[in-house]
Amino acid sequence: MADVYVVGIDMIRFGRYPERTVVQLAADAVLLALDDCGLGITDIQALFSGNIGETMTGQRTLQLIGQTGIPVVNCTNACATGATAFREGWTAIKAGLFDTVLCVGVEKMAPGMIVKKKVGNEPFPAEGLIGSETMPAVFSMVGLEHARKYGTTIEQFAKVSVKNHHHSTFNPKSMYQKETPLEEVLGAEMIAYPNTKLMCSVNVDGAAAAVLMSEKRAREAGVLDRAVRVRASALASDAWTERNQVMQDVNTVSRQAAASAYDMAGLGPQDLQLVELHDCFATAEILHYENLGLCRDGEGGRLIDSGDTSLGGRIPVNVSGGLLSKGHPLGATGIANIYEVSTHLRGEAGRRQVEGARIGLTHVVGLGSACAVHILEKA
Amino acid sequence: MADVYVVGIDMIRFGRYPERTVVQLAADAVLLALDDCGLGITDIQALFSGNIGETMTGQRTLQLIGQTGIPVVNCTNACATGATAFREGWTAIKAGLFDTVLCVGVEKMAPGMIVKKKVGNEPFPAEGLIGSETMPAVFSMVGLEHARKYGTTIEQFAKVSVKNHHHSTFNPKSMYQKETPLEEVLGAEMIAYPNTKLMCSVNVDGAAAAVLMSEKRAREAGVLDRAVRVRASALASDAWTERNQVMQDVNTVSRQAAASAYDMAGLGPQDLQLVELHDCFATAEILHYENLGLCRDGEGGRLIDSGDTSLGGRIPVNVSGGLLSKGHPLGATGIANIYEVSTHLRGEAGRRQVEGARIGLTHVVGLGSACAVHILEKA
Repeated sequence: MADVYVVGIDMIRFGRYPERTVVQLAADAVLLALDDCGLGITDIQALFSGNIGETMTGQRTLQLIGQTGIPVVNCTNACATGATAFREGWTAIKAGLFDTVLCVGVEKMAPGMIVKKKVGNEPFPAEGLIGSETMPAVFSMVGLEHARKYGTTIEQFAKVSVKNHHHSTFNPKSMYQKETPLEEVLGAEMIAYPNTKLMCSVNVDGAAAAVLMSEKRAREAGVLDRAVRVRASALASDAWTERNQVMQDVNTVSRQAAASAYDMAGLGPQDLQLVELHDCFATAEILHYENLGLCRDGEGGRLIDSGDTSLGGRIPVNVSGGLLSKGHPLGATGIANIYEVSTHLRGEAGRRQVEGARIGLTHVVGLGSACAVHILEKA
Repeated sequence: MADVYVVGIDMIRFGRYPERTVVQLAADAVLLALDDCGLGITDIQALFSGNIGETMTGQRTLQLIGQTGIPVVNCTNACATGATAFREGWTAIKAGLFDTVLCVGVEKMAPGMIVKKKVGNEPFPAEGLIGSETMPAVFSMVGLEHARKYGTTIEQFAKVSVKNHHHSTFNPKSMYQKETPLEEVLGAEMIAYPNTKLMCSVNVDGAAAAVLMSEKRAREAGVLDRAVRVRASALASDAWTERNQVMQDVNTVSRQAAASAYDMAGLGPQDLQLVELHDCFATAEILHYENLGLCRDGEGGRLIDSGDTSLGGRIPVNVSGGLLSKGHPLGATGIANIYEVSTHLRGEAGRRQVEGARIGLTHVVGLGSACAVHILEKA
């Protein structure tokens, strides 16, 4: 089946935009992505929108840009929402329905948004069953269990935050762009042991958008030189049969999506030059090193110590600054990750460029559960 | 490209289920649909879920049935939510990603749900801009404008409700199953002139589910004898550039989706033996006769008078009882319409069977906007 290409992609700088609506932020990202490939909204044949907080976000974004009557699909999938919208766009091109589609992910993370959603609706069993009502509690647990099993230290978890904050100093689109030394990370306000406030992802507003094209159309349009080939798109939910298996909910779903993606691409972790993974908490990044096969089980702590996952290392992880410093606007995160990897594959990442990057992987995981993994390659 | 088939489809009886959760209702429909084709949840490779009111509905439905780790996509698209989930499943098979997928649509219409959503979020410009805050006001306007332009009478609008309530007396899955004579319809509580309470769709709880298969897999599984071929799946949003164009928002989006569907199927309205269309209000059905090409513009009133759209007529419309009597649980409606048409194409509609039905069309339209049209054919 013919390949699908990312031909235009961009994001707004993640931050706090109290004066702008969700759809204004989405429209900002869409206009940047269209501009990135020299297209206009009339070139777009369908829109796939990822946003949790609002309804009909895709259509309302078009009201600001230009309503051309195109099909619009709105998707949600917890923290994998943006990646799911991207995947639905990719699927539609694979199906031969369209040659050029737009995918957008957006979120405004007003304080308490998640809690409000939960109060207004039915209880959310994925968390309720395990007796931990909040994400920080879940990622405390998985970190402590990793420490118990493998001897991972609190300092190793904290180093993830030091690394990602360091990376973000080179990323103008990151919410924070400030070094955070180890003592500062360890000494910050404790949120849920061992994750301090600097080891938790940042609640920010954000939007990211991508234009996808069929190979045929990309060739005709002469945009293959800066294009990025989607080598694999995998989505998994959790095969989660027992209570009290939070380790499984975080880990097995990631392993399953990664295995599907590697299989689809015919590639393995050794073929990657960079990874953007779901560091919603510092503890999570260590686990996902292992879940994505970047090291063997139990060696995540040693991998962060080695410096291999830092910019300049063997397999840089979260060069964007990650969710810990760039920020984590739920619906936007999946496409923002794809933006980061694409920017490196295009050789346009400036001071944070991973030299010689040809293949990269993105990973997002939402509890509940949904994990999306994409593998991207320089065209 | 290879065809996609509906091989199993069913719905719960629409009604009020205060003691059951959204995901329990969804699971009920899924088990009925699996049973309809003799499959189990382990045969399903991906799930596409349509629901507006909750989050992660697809995954939580699997928690009740069996978590097999399959990809789950949650979609929303106003009243086209269920049809959008169906279309995303169809697209994924077309793309060659899967051979067997499950699509489910579900909603609990607790009183005030829609209003709650609006209060909790940003204003909804599609309604706000035109100065009418409610759906009844919108469908009052479009009816009165049709009357002004074409001389359509209040009795003609009311006859839609008489017809659909009559049809529903033959449908055991309909919320109401009771005749409503013309005087009763006209004399009911006025909601928004000219639509009385009996001319408004019923707020009910409901769920419907469908199993789709690739042609290859359906042939291998030996399920083609009761299968229904998806001849076309079209989705459109509104090309809506001015304020105060509610007629356009209801009409143009329907015309565009219908044109796409007829084009994809290589068929026209003359090829249809039955239609399930979006009678969210009695006034809407008359407009959609014209939007779907069942009669010429301005002749909708005469079409209802002729009896052609009644069971036994030339082109029966809403034989299920429609949204007016069967009920309208937003996320479920799109797949419930497909269930109705499929049941006739299979010759299994009992006392409401449209004799000789070979090809049927389903239509849903959500303001904001999203219109989905599917054309289905006996395999």
